[in-house]
Amino acid sequence: MSKIPVGVLGAGIVGQQYIALLKEHPWFEPRFIAASPRSAGKKFRDATAGRVYHPGIVEAVGDIIVSDANDVSAALSAAKAGNCAFVFSALELGKDEMCALENAYAAAGIPVISNASAHRWTPDVPVLIAEVNHHHTDIIPVQKKARGWDKGFIAVKPNCSIQSYTTPLHALIMEGYEIKRLIVTTLQAVSGAGYPGVPSLDMIDNIVPYIGGEEEKTELEPLKILGTMENGVFKNAEYPKISAHCTRVPVTDGHSACVSVEFGDKKPSIDEVKRIWASFKSLPQELNLPMAPKQPIIIRDEADRPQPRKDRDADKAMAVSVGRIRPCNVFDIRFTGLSHNSVRGAAGGGILNAELLKHQGYLA
Amino acid sequence: MSKIPVGVLGAGIVGQQYIALLKEHPWFEPRFIAASPRSAGKKFRDATAGRVYHPGIVEAVGDIIVSDANDVSAALSAAKAGNCAFVFSALELGKDEMCALENAYAAAGIPVISNASAHRWTPDVPVLIAEVNHHHTDIIPVQKKARGWDKGFIAVKPNCSIQSYTTPLHALIMEGYEIKRLIVTTLQAVSGAGYPGVPSLDMIDNIVPYIGGEEEKTELEPLKILGTMENGVFKNAEYPKISAHCTRVPVTDGHSACVSVEFGDKKPSIDEVKRIWASFKSLPQELNLPMAPKQPIIIRDEADRPQPRKDRDADKAMAVSVGRIRPCNVFDIRFTGLSHNSVRGAAGGGILNAELLKHQGYLA
Amino acid sequence: MSKIPVGVLGAGIVGQQYIALLKEHPWFEPRFIAASPRSAGKKFRDATAGRVYHPGIVEAVGDIIVSDANDVSAALSAAKAGNCAFVFSALELGKDEMCALENAYAAAGIPVISNASAHRWTPDVPVLIAEVNHHHTDIIPVQKKARGWDKGFIAVKPNCSIQSYTTPLHALIMEGYEIKRLIVTTLQAVSGAGYPGVPSLDMIDNIVPYIGGEEEKTELEPLKILGTMENGVFKNAEYPKISAHCTRVPVTDGHSACVSVEFGDKKPSIDEVKRIWASFKSLPQELNLPMAPKQPIIIRDEADRPQPRKDRDADKAMAVSVGRIRPCNVFDIRFTGLSHNSVRGAAGGGILNAELLKHQGYLA
Amino acid sequence: MSKIPVGVLGAGIVGQQYIALLKEHPWFEPRFIAASPRSAGKKFRDATAGRVYHPGIVEAVGDIIVSDANDVSAALSAAKAGNCAFVFSALELGKDEMCALENAYAAAGIPVISNASAHRWTPDVPVLIAEVNHHHTDIIPVQKKARGWDKGFIAVKPNCSIQSYTTPLHALIMEGYEIKRLIVTTLQAVSGAGYPGVPSLDMIDNIVPYIGGEEEKTELEPLKILGTMENGVFKNAEYPKISAHCTRVPVTDGHSACVSVEFGDKKPSIDEVKRIWASFKSLPQELNLPMAPKQPIIIRDEADRPQPRKDRDADKAMAVSVGRIRPCNVFDIRFTGLSHNSVRGAAGGGILNAELLKHQGYLA
Repeated sequence: MSKIPVGVLGAGIVGQQYIALLKEHPWFEPRFIAASPRSAGKKFRDATAGRVYHPGIVEAVGDIIVSDANDVSAALSAAKAGNCAFVFSALELGKDEMCALENAYAAAGIPVISNASAHRWTPDVPVLIAEVNHHHTDIIPVQKKARGWDKGFIAVKPNCSIQSYTTPLHALIMEGYEIKRLIVTTLQAVSGAGYPGVPSLDMIDNIVPYIGGEEEKTELEPLKILGTMENGVFKNAEYPKISAHCTRVPVTDGHSACVSVEFGDKKPSIDEVKRIWASFKSLPQELNLPMAPKQPIIIRDEADRPQPRKDRDADKAMAVSVGRIRPCNVFDIRFTGLSHNSVRGAAGGGILNAELLKHQGYLA
Repeated sequence: MSKIPVGVLGAGIVGQQYIALLKEHPWFEPRFIAASPRSAGKKFRDATAGRVYHPGIVEAVGDIIVSDANDVSAALSAAKAGNCAFVFSALELGKDEMCALENAYAAAGIPVISNASAHRWTPDVPVLIAEVNHHHTDIIPVQKKARGWDKGFIAVKPNCSIQSYTTPLHALIMEGYEIKRLIVTTLQAVSGAGYPGVPSLDMIDNIVPYIGGEEEKTELEPLKILGTMENGVFKNAEYPKISAHCTRVPVTDGHSACVSVEFGDKKPSIDEVKRIWASFKSLPQELNLPMAPKQPIIIRDEADRPQPRKDRDADKAMAVSVGRIRPCNVFDIRFTGLSHNSVRGAAGGGILNAELLKHQGYLA
Repeated sequence: MSKIPVGVLGAGIVGQQYIALLKEHPWFEPRFIAASPRSAGKKFRDATAGRVYHPGIVEAVGDIIVSDANDVSAALSAAKAGNCAFVFSALELGKDEMCALENAYAAAGIPVISNASAHRWTPDVPVLIAEVNHHHTDIIPVQKKARGWDKGFIAVKPNCSIQSYTTPLHALIMEGYEIKRLIVTTLQAVSGAGYPGVPSLDMIDNIVPYIGGEEEKTELEPLKILGTMENGVFKNAEYPKISAHCTRVPVTDGHSACVSVEFGDKKPSIDEVKRIWASFKSLPQELNLPMAPKQPIIIRDEADRPQPRKDRDADKAMAVSVGRIRPCNVFDIRFTGLSHNSVRGAAGGGILNAELLKHQGYLA
Repeated sequence: MSKIPVGVLGAGIVGQQYIALLKEHPWFEPRFIAASPRSAGKKFRDATAGRVYHPGIVEAVGDIIVSDANDVSAALSAAKAGNCAFVFSALELGKDEMCALENAYAAAGIPVISNASAHRWTPDVPVLIAEVNHHHTDIIPVQKKARGWDKGFIAVKPNCSIQSYTTPLHALIMEGYEIKRLIVTTLQAVSGAGYPGVPSLDMIDNIVPYIGGEEEKTELEPLKILGTMENGVFKNAEYPKISAHCTRVPVTDGHSACVSVEFGDKKPSIDEVKRIWASFKSLPQELNLPMAPKQPIIIRDEADRPQPRKDRDADKAMAVSVGRIRPCNVFDIRFTGLSHNSVRGAAGGGILNAELLKHQGYLA
C-alpha cells in the first residue's frame, strides 16, 4: 500500500521531530517541506546543516527542496505538485501571520494539522488531544461551511505544558468526578523553547521561574478541550479553575507537573484514582492508531517517579506517566505528571491527531 | 576585643559552611571541631582532604585536631579544654542518637545551636528563624529548669525548604492578614542532600519529584515557628494549612518555592503585599546583628526572577528574594521565593540564631 | 529457533544494560542473574526497585530470582540449573576477588564474557574489540589447556575510554600506517562510574580533571589489543606510545576523546584518513553479527561534531563517530572520537564479543 | 583621593563584569558607558533590564545614560564630557569595525584597554598578560608616534583560552627551560561565548568539541606574548609550537586546559616545575597592584583539582590554578590549568593591564 504524501511546515525542532516520526510511519510520508526564507530553495540537507537534532532524517528527506513558507502561493503550488494530502504546521510566526498562512492552506484545499498557538482560540477551530476530545472534530464541517472551504480545514493541538495533567483529569471526569480547582507547578524542558531557545547561562546551576505566555495557555486551554459542542458551537468548560506556575528547568525533553486537585462533592479515593488511570483507554486505543500509546496513562509506583530522563520515552514517548498519587493537605489529591513535550506535546500529538482525522474521514 | 571560642559538630557540607562563615565573624571563632570517627584524631586539613568546599577554611582551622563526635565524653572534654562557649551542631545522625548527643552537650553546660531535625518537635525546644519568632527563646529558661540544666540548652533552626516563604508569610501575618492555606512546590538544590548526596546520573537532563521526608517538614515546621508561647508552653499555629510538592533540581545552592496563598477574610492587594515585604524588618535588623541581612525580603521586579544563581547570594546569602508577585486564579496571591539553603537555610541561619541568643544573654 | 540461555553477573548500570540489550536479542536470552548479597534471594524486580535505568527490563526478567554472586558455588548451581551457555560478567569487585570468581565459573564449564578489568592483564586472556583483534580468540584453546578447563574460558573487553580511538587507529594500521605517538584527552560520561557514582555536586557547573586508574588503562590496554599472538603467546604492540588526560564531564552517556596522532614515516593525507575510516569494515560486519554496527566508524562532517547527545546512539550505539579530522600543528593529524560507553564500551561490546565467539565455535 | 573616571565600551557579559569589578576599585571609577544602539540613550538600569549578571552594578551605575558606541563622535563627546582618562573596550563587533572604533578613541586622545581580538595582530599593538610581558608596553611610544597620536593608544589582552597555561609556561621559560611543543585540550565555559551565547540544548547532557576561531587564537597568541621587542618592533617567539583542541563544556565560568609539554634539551624535574610555579611572582606582585593576585600560580595538590567551581575564584578570580603535574608518557610533563575566563581572562585581566599602564605612566 502506498503511503499518503504529506507536508511539514517548519524545519526547526518541531518540524524535524515531525520528520523523524514520519520517517517510520505506516500511513504518511513527508514529501513537502516549507520553512523560513533563510532555508528556502535549498535542499533540506543543506538548509539544516549543523542543526539537525534527529538521526536519520537527513537520509530520509535530505533531497527535498525546502519551499519558502512565507511565499504562500509558491509553497502551495509546491505542496500541490507533491500531491500533499495535508500539512503539519510547525512554524514559529506571529499570531496574525500564522493565522493568515494556515487559512491560505485550508482555503487552497489543504488541511492543516497545526502545533501553532495562533488558531487555538479561533471559535470554530478544534484544539485536540486525541484521547480526550476526539468528538470535537465534529466542528470541522461547521468550520468548512462558514469559511467556504471545500477540502481544507484547520485543527490544532494544545500547548505542551498541559499534556501531563489534562488526560488524567479527563479520565476522572469521565468517571463522574467533577474537578473544581487545580494548582499546578510545571517544570518544563528547554526544547519547548525551540533552538537556540534558552541560553545555557540560564540553565547551568539555575532554574528560571517564568516562561512568557505559558501560564495563560496552561490555565485556559484545558477549558476549551474539556468543553462541549452544542449546535455547532464550542462551549468551554467552566471548571476546573487552574492556577499555574510555569518554570524552566535544565532538562532537554519532558515537562513535569506537580498538581493539587480539588474535586466537587463526589471525591474518589486514591485507589479509585489509580484504578481509573491504570484502566483508561480512549478512541485512539480502540482504533489501535499507529501513534497511539497502548496505555495513555502509565502509573509509576516508585516513590521518586516519574522522572524526565527515565519516563519521557514511555510507549513511543506518547504516554503520560503519573506518580506520587497521594492525598493533598489542602485540596483532595496531588500527583506528579510527566509527558514528552516535543513528541506527545508536539509532533507526536499532531500525528496522532492526523491519524484520528484520517480515520474519521476528514483527510480522504 | 577577643572573640568567643565556639565549636562546630560536623565537617560535611554544613559543618564546613559554618567554618567558612565563622572565619570572618566579628564575635565568634571556631576552636573545636568534632566529626565522625573516620575523621577523628586527624587534623582538620587531613580529615577533609579532597572534600573541602570552601576556599580558605583549611588555612583557618586546618590544624585543629578533629574530635570523635560519637565519643561524647571525650569530645566534651576537648570542647571544654577549648573553652567553647557553645557549639553549632551540624552532624548527620539518626534522630535518637542526635537527641542524645545534643542533650549530653547541653547537660554538660555547653549550649547547642543546632541544624539537625532531631529536636524540632521536642516540646520545649525552640525552632528559630531570627526574624520571625525571636521571642520563642523565652522557652529556654523553662527548658533549662525542666531538664535541670545550668548553662546548657538546645535551640534549633528549621528545615531549609521553608525559608523562602515563612518569613514573607510572617511579614503579612504581622500586618493583620490571616493566612489560611498554602500550596507550594519547591525546586531544591542538591547541596541540601549533603555530599556525596544526589548522584549526578539523577541530575543530568533530569529532575526528581521527591525528597524523602521533606514534604512533612515543609508542611509542619512553619506551624511551630508561627505559633505562640503561653505559660511556658508552645502552642502551634492552626494555620496555614500547607500542601507541599518537594522536588530536586540540578542546582548547587538555592531553594526556590512556587507558592499560592489563600488569605482569611481580609485580603491585601498585590501592592500592599509588595509594600509590606519591601519594608519588613525585625529584631535582627534593629540590633544590626552581624549576620542579619539589611533587608530580610528583597523584591525582584523582573519578570523572570528570583533565580538561584543570580539571587541566592543576596546580602551575604541571608536575604530571601521574592518575585512574580501576582494574583492567583485559585487562591489570592502567588509568588516565587528563593533562599540560599546552605547559608540562610543552614549555617548562616544558625549563626544568626547564635547572635540573637548572645544578644539576649543566653550565651553569656 | 529457541534462544540460548545466558547469565548476567551484576545488576548495576552495566548489568542492567546487558539485560536491556539482550531483551531483544535474536540469539541469547537472559535466564540467570547474580548480584551482590544485598540483592540475592529477591526477585529481580524487587532487588532493583527504585534503581532501574532501562524501560522494559523489569517486564523481561523481573521474576528471575537473583543469586548471590559472592556465593559462587550456589550461583554456579543456579546457572547450571538454568542451562546457561555462558555468563556476561559485570560485577564490581576488587581485582583478586573478581579473578577468583571468574575463574570459578570457567573452571565449572561456564565461559565468562567479562567487562571487568581484573583479567585484562592476565597473559592468556584476550582483551577483545571484535572489529580489531577478533583473531586474539585463538588464545582460548591455549588458555583452556593451561588451566585444565574443558568448556569454560575467560574473554574480556577493554576499558570504555579507549573505544573512541582504538578502532580508528587500527583501521589506519591495517592500511600500513604505523602510529608512533598519541596524546589524548578524554571527556568521559558519568555512567562510566556506575551508580550512585559521581556526586551531582561535582557535576553541576563543573568538570573533574581526574578519574582514578583511568589514564593507565587508557594508555596501556590498546597495546595488548593491537599486539600479535606468536606461538600461543600475546606480544604487546610497542606503539603507539600514549599519553592520556582523562576528565569527567556532565554527560550521562558517551565518552569523547580529543586525539593528536603522530605517524611513522609513512603519513596519510587527511583525505586518505577519511577514506580509510569511511570504508573500514571487519569480521563482525562481514558476518553481519546482530550487534555489529553496519559501519564501525561514522565520519561526521559538521564542524562541531561528534557530540555525545547527538551521536552516541548511532547504529544501535555501537558505531564510533569521528569528526574534526584535520592536520595537527605538532603531530600529524588530530580528530575527535566518540563512543557510547555503556553500550559500545560495555554491554554492547560484550554481546558483540559473545556473538563473535559463538560464530567461532567457542560457545557451542 | 578622588578616583580616576573611566569608560566602559560594552554592556554585555564582559562589560558588566568590568563594572562589577570597578565598583570596588580603589583607583578607577566607571563614569561613561557606551553600548549597542539598542541600549543607547537609556539609563544603564533600563538598558540592561532583565540581563544583569552581577549584583550591585545597577546600584552603582544605573543612572548613567548609555551612549551609542556606533556613533563614535557622539560617544567621544560624552566620554570627554565625563573626563574619562581611558576606556575599557568590551564590545562585540566585526574586526574592521572594531579596529576603526578603537582607533577613533585613541586618535581622540583616549587610551583604549581592550578585550577585543581585532587589534591583537596589529604589529604595533601589545597583547598583554601583566605578569608575562609587561615590558611589551614599550611599544606604546612607537605606536603613538607612528599613528600621530598624542595621549591615546591601544593595548589589548589575549584570548581567555590561553590564560591557564601561558603564565605557567612563561614562569618555566624565565628559569631557562625552553619549551618546544605543546598539545593542549581546553574545556571552556559558556560565559566565554557571551549572552545568549551557547544554547542550553547544546549544553545539557552534552559537550561540543569545537569553538569557532578559538584554536587559532589558542595556538598563535602565546607566540606574540612570549616574543621579544627589538628596535621598536615585536618579534614573535618561534616556540612553543602549539596544537589545540578547544571544547565547550557545561560550566558557567572557568576554562580548564589539559596540557602536555615538550621541553628543549634542558628538562626540569616535576619537583622543579612545582617549585618554579609556587614561587613565581612578577611585576604586578612586586608593585602590589590592586587587581594582581598575590600568587599568580596556585598549585593544587589534590588528585582531582583544579576544578572550575572550586578553584576559579581563587585570589579575586585572578590566579591560575594548576594541578595534576606529572610526567607525560609522550612529551616531558603534563598538567591541568584553570583560570576564570571572564575575570582573569577578560575584565580582571584588562583592569590589571590598566593598573600596570597607570603605574608605567601611560595613563597620566
